[in-house]
Amino acid sequence: GERMVLFSGPCAAESYEICIETGSKVKAICDKLGIDYVFKSSFDKANRTSSGSYRGPSKEGGLEILSRVKKELGVPVVTDVHESHQCAEVAEVADVLQIPAFLCRQTDLLKAAAKTGRAVKVKKGQFMAPEDMKYAVDKVKAEGNNNVFLTERGASFGYHTLVVDMRSLPIMRQFTPVIFDVTHSVQQPGGKGGSSGGQREFAPFLARAAAATGVDGFFIETHPFPEKALSDGPNMIPLHQMEEFLGMIKKYWELSKAY
Amino acid sequence: GERMVLFSGPCAAESYEICIETGSKVKAICDKLGIDYVFKSSFDKANRTSSGSYRGPSKEGGLEILSRVKKELGVPVVTDVHESHQCAEVAEVADVLQIPAFLCRQTDLLKAAAKTGRAVKVKKGQFMAPEDMKYAVDKVKAEGNNNVFLTERGASFGYHTLVVDMRSLPIMRQFTPVIFDVTHSVQQPGGKGGSSGGQREFAPFLARAAAATGVDGFFIETHPFPEKALSDGPNMIPLHQMEEFLGMIKKYWELSKAY
Amino acid sequence: GERMVLFSGPCAAESYEICIETGSKVKAICDKLGIDYVFKSSFDKANRTSSGSYRGPSKEGGLEILSRVKKELGVPVVTDVHESHQCAEVAEVADVLQIPAFLCRQTDLLKAAAKTGRAVKVKKGQFMAPEDMKYAVDKVKAEGNNNVFLTERGASFGYHTLVVDMRSLPIMRQFTPVIFDVTHSVQQPGGKGGSSGGQREFAPFLARAAAATGVDGFFIETHPFPEKALSDGPNMIPLHQMEEFLGMIKKYWELSKAY
Amino acid sequence: GERMVLFSGPCAAESYEICIETGSKVKAICDKLGIDYVFKSSFDKANRTSSGSYRGPSKEGGLEILSRVKKELGVPVVTDVHESHQCAEVAEVADVLQIPAFLCRQTDLLKAAAKTGRAVKVKKGQFMAPEDMKYAVDKVKAEGNNNVFLTERGASFGYHTLVVDMRSLPIMRQFTPVIFDVTHSVQQPGGKGGSSGGQREFAPFLARAAAATGVDGFFIETHPFPEKALSDGPNMIPLHQMEEFLGMIKKYWELSKAY
Repeated sequence: GERMVLFSGPCAAESYEICIETGSKVKAICDKLGIDYVFKSSFDKANRTSSGSYRGPSKEGGLEILSRVKKELGVPVVTDVHESHQCAEVAEVADVLQIPAFLCRQTDLLKAAAKTGRAVKVKKGQFMAPEDMKYAVDKVKAEGNNNVFLTERGASFGYHTLVVDMRSLPIMRQFTPVIFDVTHSVQQPGGKGGSSGGQREFAPFLARAAAATGVDGFFIETHPFPEKALSDGPNMIPLHQMEEFLGMIKKYWELSKAY
Repeated sequence: GERMVLFSGPCAAESYEICIETGSKVKAICDKLGIDYVFKSSFDKANRTSSGSYRGPSKEGGLEILSRVKKELGVPVVTDVHESHQCAEVAEVADVLQIPAFLCRQTDLLKAAAKTGRAVKVKKGQFMAPEDMKYAVDKVKAEGNNNVFLTERGASFGYHTLVVDMRSLPIMRQFTPVIFDVTHSVQQPGGKGGSSGGQREFAPFLARAAAATGVDGFFIETHPFPEKALSDGPNMIPLHQMEEFLGMIKKYWELSKAY
Repeated sequence: GERMVLFSGPCAAESYEICIETGSKVKAICDKLGIDYVFKSSFDKANRTSSGSYRGPSKEGGLEILSRVKKELGVPVVTDVHESHQCAEVAEVADVLQIPAFLCRQTDLLKAAAKTGRAVKVKKGQFMAPEDMKYAVDKVKAEGNNNVFLTERGASFGYHTLVVDMRSLPIMRQFTPVIFDVTHSVQQPGGKGGSSGGQREFAPFLARAAAATGVDGFFIETHPFPEKALSDGPNMIPLHQMEEFLGMIKKYWELSKAY
Repeated sequence: GERMVLFSGPCAAESYEICIETGSKVKAICDKLGIDYVFKSSFDKANRTSSGSYRGPSKEGGLEILSRVKKELGVPVVTDVHESHQCAEVAEVADVLQIPAFLCRQTDLLKAAAKTGRAVKVKKGQFMAPEDMKYAVDKVKAEGNNNVFLTERGASFGYHTLVVDMRSLPIMRQFTPVIFDVTHSVQQPGGKGGSSGGQREFAPFLARAAAATGVDGFFIETHPFPEKALSDGPNMIPLHQMEEFLGMIKKYWELSKAY
C-alpha cells in the first residue's frame, strides 16, 4: 500500500485506562510519522500455556473497552476470535478480526470471520510453510471477502524457540498483504515454565529486517509498563520507546518501496 | 496399563458401511490379540489444508454412525471436537473426546471436554515441547476429570515434514498415559499442494520404535481401500494388513512392559 | 548381519588402564551375549567446543594404547580420523576408520580412509538428510572399498538439541549397514556453555527404539566413572550398567530380525 | 567498520579468464560505490555432495590464478582451506583464509590458519548456535591472531533447507565482525539429488534483511554465466546484476550505521 500500517496496543485489554493511554500515545506517533494506525487488544487470551494465567477482561468487558477506544480515538480496532460463534458479535465492534496462529487452519473459524464482512487478519501458524497460507486466504475469499491479510510471527525451530524465515514475507505477499508481528516473533513458547518467555532485545533487529525484506505493515504490542503487564510482558515494547522504534523501521520501510 | 490399547478406524466417517466393515474387522483382530479396542472416526475434518477438501458426514450424520457402530460392536468410540460448544452433544455418544493437535492449547475446548466427564485424549501440537503438554493435562484435571491422556504425532521439522522425537514418550508418560499416533506421524503437512501427503512405508518402523520406547497404546487409521479414502489416504494402513501390523507391534509392546 | 555388532569403549583413550578395564569388561559381556565387539576409543577429540577442553593422548600415544588393547583382548578396534594424511598411519592399527559427523562430506578424507582398505564407518552429519548419505558411501566405494557403513547420531533440531529421526535407519540401510550411536544421540551440542551436555537418561529409550526400528549394530561410549571422564561424561553409560543395557537392546534386536 | 566490505567472485576458480573478468568488474563497482573489495574464489570444492562433481583447478592451479588476480587488480584475496597442512602454503597468496562451515569446530584447522598471521574468516556451521561461535573465535585468538571474523550462511531447518536466523547477526557481532553470505544462505543442501540446489530469487530479500539487521559486510558469489558455472550455479548472482544488487544493499547498510 501507499502508507505503512501499524497494529498496536497492549496484549490484553487489561483496563480502559491502560488501553486509552496506550492507544492515544501510539495514535499521536502514527499521525506524526504518517502511519495508518489500528488499535489492538485482546479480550481473551484463549491459549495461555497454563490455566492459571490471566486470560483477559472477558468478551463483554473487552468489547466495551474496544468500543470506547475506537470512538474516542477515531481509529479502527482489531481483536482475536477463537471460536466461530464469536465472530458476529465481535464484528459489531472490531474492524479487523484476527485469527490466532494455532487456529489458522480451522475452516469454520475462517469462514465465520469472513462472513462478517470485516477484514480478516490470519496469523501464520508456527507449523506452517508460508506457501500453504494460500489456502487460508482462499478459505476467506471463498466467502466473498477479499479483505484478508496474513501475519508472520515465526516458525517452530526445535523446542521453545521460533525462527523468522524472512523468505516467508515475499512468498506470502504473492497472495495478499503481509504484516510482520514484531513482538510475538521474539517469543519463546513455554520457555519460562508455565508461561512463555521473550527476547525483547531482538525486536528492533527483526523489525528492521522485515521492513527491509518488504512488508505492508507491522504488529507491535506495547504497554506503559511491560514488566507489570498481565500477559506477554517479556516481549512487549515499552510505550515510551515506540516513537523511536517506529521512526527507525519507517525509514527502512520507505526504502523498500522501491523494490 | 495391563493391556495394550488401540484407537483405530477410518480417518473420516465416510459411511456406515465403511465404518462397520472396518470396525468389525479390527475388533476381531483385537479380540484375538488381547488388545483393548476403541473405534475411531471423525465426523468433521475441520482443519483440512484447503476448503475444497472433503470434511466428513457432518456432526449429526457422524454421531449417528458412531452410535450405531458403538452399539453393534459393543466397543467404546472416540471422535474429535473442534469448538467448545460441541463437547456436550458429542459426549452423548463418544466415550473419548479427542482434542486435535492444533487445538491442544485452547483452554475453553479442553475445559468443555473435561466437564463432560468423558475421557479426554489430547494430541500434542506439532509446535509443542513434550514437557509443556503437562499444562494441557492440568487444564483437564482442573475440572475434576483425571481421565486424560496424551498422543504423540510428530513435531514440526522444517517445512512439510514432521519428526517423531521418541524422547517425548517417556517425558509425557511422567504426567499421564501416552498413545502413539502411527498414521499421522508419517504425514507430510501440505506436502502434496492443496492437501497433506504421507509416507505409509515408514509406519511399521515408527510403530515398532514407539512400542519399544514404551507407550500405553496406539492410534492407527485404517481403511479397506486407502487409495479411495476421502481423507488421509496416503498415510492410512490398509485394513487387510492390520492383523500382521498389530501382531508385530504387540510383540515389542509386551517386551517393553519390563522396562 | 547374523550377529549384532557393538562399537564401545571410553570416548577418549585417557589411559591404558581405563581402556583395558573397559575393553575387557565389555568383551566379556559381548562373549556372553553373542555380540561381535569392536573396541572404540579416540586418540584426539579434534572438534571440542572450546580449545581449553581435553583433546586426548595424541595420535602416537593413542595408537599405542589401541594397539595394546587390540592385542591383549583379541578384538578389532575403531578410532576417528580427522585429516586425510592421518589415515595411512592410523590404519596400521585400527581395523575400522571412523569419519566424524562434521566431516562426512570431506571427499579427501573419505577417499584417504577408503584407500587404506580398512573398513570405513561414516557418521551422518547433523545437517544431512539420510538419503544424501548415499553420496558418502559412494565416495568410499569409488575407491574400490565396499566395506563401508553408516552411523546415525541425531539431526540438528533448533539450537543445542538433536533429534533422532528413526526413519533415517531404514533409509540408510538401503545403501549399506547402519549403526546407531546411542550416546551421541543424547548429546546437547554446546548446551553446557563451553562444552556439550548430555541426557544419559534417554539413552535406553532411544537404543530400544533403534533396535526395534532395525539396525545392524550399536555404538555406545562407556566409562568406569563417567563423572570423572575427560570428555563426554554427561552422555556415557556407566560401565557397570552395560550388561543390563546390552541384554535389553539385544532382545529387541533379535525380534527385529524378522522384519 | 567505516566502510562496507564485500567478498565476491566465482564460487570455483574455474579459469583465469572467468576470475579476472569477474574480479575486474566487481572491483569497478566497489570503487564506484565506496566498498572495500576482497576477491574470492575456491581452488578446491572439498565437500561436494557427490564425488563426481567438479572440484576446482587444484591447489597449485588455483593459487596461481588467485596470485595473478591479486596482482593485476591490486585487491586482497580470500580462499578456503580444508586441512591444517594447507594453511601455510595458501597464506603465501591469500590475505584471508576462510574456514568452511562444516569445519568450523576443527581445532587444528583453526589454529593452523591463525598461526599464518593472515585474517581468518570462519563460516558458522549449519549445526551451530550463534553464541557458540564464540569458541571458534577464541580458538583463533588463542594463537595471538585477533584478525578473525565470522560469517552467517544459514542454519539447518529440517532436511534440504536452511533458514537464516537474523538474531545470529547481533549475537555474533558481540564477539567479532560478521559477514553475511548471501548466496549460500539460499542454497538447498542436497536438494537437487547429487548436488545442492539454490533459490537465487530470495537473495535480494535476505541481503536487504541482513543489511538492515546490521553486518560488517557481505559475501556474494557471482559469475558471468551462472547457468554455465561448474559449481553453485543455482544460487550465484549473475555478474551483470551486481551493480544494482550492491547499490541496493548499500543503502540499507548505510542506514544501519546509526543503530
